[in-house]
Amino acid sequence: MTTETFILDPTLAKDTVEITKLDICLVLLIRDRTYPWLILVPAVHGLRDLDDLNPEQLQTVMAEVDHISKVMKAQFQPYKMNVAALGNVVEQLHIHVIARFQGDPAWPAPVWGAHPPQDYSDADRDHLVDQIRTALCR
Amino acid sequence: MTTETFILDPTLAKDTVEITKLDICLVLLIRDRTYPWLILVPAVHGLRDLDDLNPEQLQTVMAEVDHISKVMKAQFQPYKMNVAALGNVVEQLHIHVIARFQGDPAWPAPVWGAHPPQDYSDADRDHLVDQIRTALCR
Repeated sequence: MTTETFILDPTLAKDTVEITKLDICLVLLIRDRTYPWLILVPAVHGLRDLDDLNPEQLQTVMAEVDHISKVMKAQFQPYKMNVAALGNVVEQLHIHVIARFQGDPAWPAPVWGAHPPQDYSDADRDHLVDQIRTALCR
Repeated sequence: MTTETFILDPTLAKDTVEITKLDICLVLLIRDRTYPWLILVPAVHGLRDLDDLNPEQLQTVMAEVDHISKVMKAQFQPYKMNVAALGNVVEQLHIHVIARFQGDPAWPAPVWGAHPPQDYSDADRDHLVDQIRTALCR
């Protein structure tokens, strides 16, 4: 399974901008300025569920989720973090890491399907990607 | 923080039945026969987000999530597993592990808020709790 080349799902590619690549995960920003919303995609061919990762991969992926979550807390001062691997629509394993605020448009419901995504302006997106990339590598 | 006694959130207590306790997590069955839906609650006082766990706790919790997920796959043959730590309503850290089917009432949307929960009959719930408990300890 892992001998085949990893290719990012085309829907994820369309809906996101790449921030960086960690040891195992691509870190992507969702094109939706409604919430600070990142997605981690383990760059391993053929994964669907979190339990498809072997124990070593799972440990690395979760350490990366933990790192991203802490960076987002420091950057955005959210009220709560939401972490989820759902994948009912896009089946390639991807992990949502979302900073939530008591005043955000979906609060307290989950974000999926709550509001149509609103893309950032190019300048805002570039700025945010730089900001998160810098914070991740600090 | 960890010197205080862990007490299960009263809403989680009301909405679930305890299946077992693993090394760190309580394993609870949600009282909703719409989906096979378990919740893992790390029995440590004061946790809100997944990144509040220290690295050792995170590794143990995720190994338990992995175990539960594999057992649910074997028991229920779902199309997809959903794993999520949200906690916007109940803030005590808890991790949903849900077996999803292409024909289930919320598919492909997330389960939260999709349908009012429908409790099992006492007999069905007891049977299911026994079934999962046995499979977990095998």
